[in-house]
Amino acid sequence: MSDPPRRLGRRPGDPERTRTAILDAARRAFAASGFDRATIRAIAQDAGVDPALVIHHFRTKEALFAAAHRLPFDPTEVLDGLVDVPPDRRGAAIAQAFLRAMCAPGSPAATLLTTAATHEAAARSLREFVQGAVIEHGRPYVTGPDAELRLALVSAQLIGIAAHRLVVGLPALVEPDLDALAAVVAPTIQRYLDGPWPP
Amino acid sequence: MSDPPRRLGRRPGDPERTRTAILDAARRAFAASGFDRATIRAIAQDAGVDPALVIHHFRTKEALFAAAHRLPFDPTEVLDGLVDVPPDRRGAAIAQAFLRAMCAPGSPAATLLTTAATHEAAARSLREFVQGAVIEHGRPYVTGPDAELRLALVSAQLIGIAAHRLVVGLPALVEPDLDALAAVVAPTIQRYLDGPWPP
Repeated sequence: MSDPPRRLGRRPGDPERTRTAILDAARRAFAASGFDRATIRAIAQDAGVDPALVIHHFRTKEALFAAAHRLPFDPTEVLDGLVDVPPDRRGAAIAQAFLRAMCAPGSPAATLLTTAATHEAAARSLREFVQGAVIEHGRPYVTGPDAELRLALVSAQLIGIAAHRLVVGLPALVEPDLDALAAVVAPTIQRYLDGPWPP
Repeated sequence: MSDPPRRLGRRPGDPERTRTAILDAARRAFAASGFDRATIRAIAQDAGVDPALVIHHFRTKEALFAAAHRLPFDPTEVLDGLVDVPPDRRGAAIAQAFLRAMCAPGSPAATLLTTAATHEAAARSLREFVQGAVIEHGRPYVTGPDAELRLALVSAQLIGIAAHRLVVGLPALVEPDLDALAAVVAPTIQRYLDGPWPP
């Protein structure tokens, strides 16, 4: 009865423990301040670590938000990688990457969507994230005027499909294979990227 | 102190009181049983009125659902009215009617979306309603295969826009005038109705 308590995997400096502390602090900061006003410095301070450790674990504030909200992918990586995709295949590449990431079995995107629907702070974080990551990083691939509106319509179409599949459970969007769904929506995304505008 | 309690506008047989009782019973029934299994008869019984009165007030179960969940419009009326719209203008008519109804100032669509996001019973009701009203009533206007999938993509695009505007608050979808938004999304809706398929 006098054995010291066992501290399985909980020694100070444990990278997994540090990571968890940072993610907890990040969720609190994003919820309280929104994406723009939350700082790496304040998150590090709240987690009791050096800001350099936050950068070491998560690289960018966008990636930290994605990890904290368990987004299953970082949209900026998908979008930055489009530079190597032929322009007329980018709609298909975006549709496939986003639908696979959001709707794969076990994806926590449903939780993200419902959290944003019920918490103003989470909605604000999601808004600032879509604005900063999806719209800003997608801009190089959009030709013609109204780039921001066109990328917002891309987001509305793909997140609308994910919400119908994951939250509403509409059979026509639940039953198809994800790549088959991506294939039929790809021309819509492609037209928002480089189709005639106004359409 | 011995005055009888005042019952402002609450005399038995008051149509407004009857309507409220029916709506309360309908919300309970749809939440407990879903759209398909809830019956006019059971709702009338719960409200303490004759089923004929429910029909008198609301005409159809779809219209009763819309009123109980404060949908600001009945999609079946919009879709049934499309028969008088030239085929190549139907995408624009759908986009304008749905976006005006869902996103008008004071529209309770945001509440409907967030309720469906957080209550499985409400999500089920919304799913069965989109399936029964939007997909079944839209089917006559879709040419070619995969009619159900094409109408589901219409719903995903328009509800996705409403969610970005009302819940996420994405500036590019909040700032434009509703008719301007309808105009840029109309070609997408039109292509889902009668464009080449697979696209």
